[in-house]
Amino acid sequence: MQTTLISINRDRLNQTLAELATIGQLPAGGVRRISFSPEDLQARQQVKTWMQNAGMTVRVDAAGNMIGRYPGQLDLPALATGSHIDTVPTGGRYDGALGVLAGVEGVRSLHEQQIRLRHPIEIIVFTDEEGGMIGSKAMSGNADPDPETYRRENGQEIQACLQRIGGDWSKLDQARRSDRDIAAYVELHVEQGGVLESEHQQIGIVEGIVSLHRCDITVIGRPNHAGTTPMHLRRDAMVAAAQVVTALHEIAVNTPGRQVATIGVVNVFPNAANIIPGQVDLVADIRDLSEEHIEGLIAQLQERMAAIASTTQTQITLKRGMRVQPTLASARVRGAIAEVCEAQQLSYGHMPSRAIHDAQEIGRFTEMGMIFVPSVAGISHAEDEYSSPEQCARGAMVLLQTLLKLDAL
Amino acid sequence: MQTTLISINRDRLNQTLAELATIGQLPAGGVRRISFSPEDLQARQQVKTWMQNAGMTVRVDAAGNMIGRYPGQLDLPALATGSHIDTVPTGGRYDGALGVLAGVEGVRSLHEQQIRLRHPIEIIVFTDEEGGMIGSKAMSGNADPDPETYRRENGQEIQACLQRIGGDWSKLDQARRSDRDIAAYVELHVEQGGVLESEHQQIGIVEGIVSLHRCDITVIGRPNHAGTTPMHLRRDAMVAAAQVVTALHEIAVNTPGRQVATIGVVNVFPNAANIIPGQVDLVADIRDLSEEHIEGLIAQLQERMAAIASTTQTQITLKRGMRVQPTLASARVRGAIAEVCEAQQLSYGHMPSRAIHDAQEIGRFTEMGMIFVPSVAGISHAEDEYSSPEQCARGAMVLLQTLLKLDAL
Repeated sequence: MQTTLISINRDRLNQTLAELATIGQLPAGGVRRISFSPEDLQARQQVKTWMQNAGMTVRVDAAGNMIGRYPGQLDLPALATGSHIDTVPTGGRYDGALGVLAGVEGVRSLHEQQIRLRHPIEIIVFTDEEGGMIGSKAMSGNADPDPETYRRENGQEIQACLQRIGGDWSKLDQARRSDRDIAAYVELHVEQGGVLESEHQQIGIVEGIVSLHRCDITVIGRPNHAGTTPMHLRRDAMVAAAQVVTALHEIAVNTPGRQVATIGVVNVFPNAANIIPGQVDLVADIRDLSEEHIEGLIAQLQERMAAIASTTQTQITLKRGMRVQPTLASARVRGAIAEVCEAQQLSYGHMPSRAIHDAQEIGRFTEMGMIFVPSVAGISHAEDEYSSPEQCARGAMVLLQTLLKLDAL
Repeated sequence: MQTTLISINRDRLNQTLAELATIGQLPAGGVRRISFSPEDLQARQQVKTWMQNAGMTVRVDAAGNMIGRYPGQLDLPALATGSHIDTVPTGGRYDGALGVLAGVEGVRSLHEQQIRLRHPIEIIVFTDEEGGMIGSKAMSGNADPDPETYRRENGQEIQACLQRIGGDWSKLDQARRSDRDIAAYVELHVEQGGVLESEHQQIGIVEGIVSLHRCDITVIGRPNHAGTTPMHLRRDAMVAAAQVVTALHEIAVNTPGRQVATIGVVNVFPNAANIIPGQVDLVADIRDLSEEHIEGLIAQLQERMAAIASTTQTQITLKRGMRVQPTLASARVRGAIAEVCEAQQLSYGHMPSRAIHDAQEIGRFTEMGMIFVPSVAGISHAEDEYSSPEQCARGAMVLLQTLLKLDAL
């Protein structure tokens, strides 16, 4: 088999991207395709047709994941790829869609040249990636048994939602997979950040999907009259909270490593111009591939907080919140992607994924890897999310070549 | 006339304070006596009775101010005192009430000894001090002619409110006074701050009521994914806003002077844990006796803001908002208060009032002075606002002696 002759049809790929984007299209060019909505159902039907036309059989598992299967020459576990086609309420055209349609385009190329790999290929359209991720979580066996966890914001029950797309809540455990039937999973995705663009790299090879730790920080001061309380008698919770924001930012910037840390939520009480803030609640979001590294950052923050509390005469407490474990990419898959980039003379870099992806669940039971292509200006989850036709096709080509390389290993 | 023989009856004063506090009493001991409410009306009736029993005639002007008048020996402008008996929704027993009832107790003492001063004495219960201050503003001629300015939070029109207490919106200009009928105004009030207590002083002599300037500060950054955006590519509006909070605090603490500055309002957008803040709106409140000094502080802040905007790659703008002009106390009245304190061997200090008082309006057309007594722990506008019976009686005594001294000048 001369794998180097197999190529991606750039225009055909981008035409399907544009066609899918007409389903749930927003006036400014973005897409609104909420999971389980009529638009989501219509898009699933469209992708199913494309899969079938590319020689795939299509099934829906109990978790509503739509799985296209292209047969292999041998009775081997599948090489899987995929992503999602649901969007956030005002999403873009590339997040999720590119991963699915690049997979379909790759199989289409194989199919029109009547090529079969040794392994079957699966393309998985995961259920509700932008919501509770029930699709990939059911596959990894990590779905919450309580259906309330997955109740929709509009009040709809998950049971009815799954039924609508062909799933079955009562048989959710049947969606579970293992490395005995998926040998490896490779997902192509837009970066959703500006690193590749700023470093002039064409391809990002994901080292893993980062761990995320949230901390709820509460600063208690003394609310008092903003006029009658002299500066030296104040216990201003906002003055202390400002120093906490600065401290976390300095820790994230100055500690060696590639961590990110953000204080995105700040709630001040009573939040009145003539009253010195008595309480400020903050939420810190800290991400890194290494949980040990995150613990070190939080320890630094707590040390700074103690000093700030002392000088500002406030009480500052930190409560641990949500925690997502990291998933490392497989060395074999990363190596295969790197070899493809070298062979194709593409510039590339290794980087963590600091956003959540279905790959992080699949990586818990089989070898996982992700390929990133640049997002222009790092914009994501917005109508002006954009990756050029060349960037999309380049990513699809690297995905297909990586699957071919894994097939040969 | 042997003024030194005239004294305040401590127990009688504190009994009337306690009695007034039963009108609108809250479970924890505080008071809710919103302007124009049934409780406010009942309290006005009670104070009117006390005034009449102390030999005063009582009238209500067009702005609803209740004015008790104790005749003088000569046809001279009045020496006036007073304060307010309305409260904030969960107020204390001393704010306002002390000034009114100390005046009544002083006149009661004169009346029972059948003493008349050369000047008539007026005790003024100002309308709605805790709201739009329509009472004192109508007296100074500074009331807004638009009745919407004074519409209550509950939607009630000011016209109906004034009518309920005996005022008349259509004749508001008749409430105006001048230095031809009020020779001087002296108000006793609780400090509402902790300066006297922390400096172990019994009496505060107010130098003036400070100017207040508000600034609306807007920080514009770039909202972005808190995971996928590396630290060096961020334009985090909250990181910049935190530095603005710190800068204003440092300026207020380090600039020589007695200014106070507060950022009491902080609104973050979109205020979500996984999104880098794209915008933060702040409100700064800066107070000092000198408007020139305030301008200097704001100029310092703007310099710091420009530097912060540059290093954080954000835009920071400052818009001037509400501005209240200062009112200086009269040197003659301040001198009289100081002489009384010296004669009575009371410890005292000169200080600005950084809270708003009706005296600031009255001081715009006649000589004004204010006497402060300590507030325990500086607590104000709260149920545990407290000044001891001794502190209240001492303040009332200084008020009466000051009026006697001004009468003799």
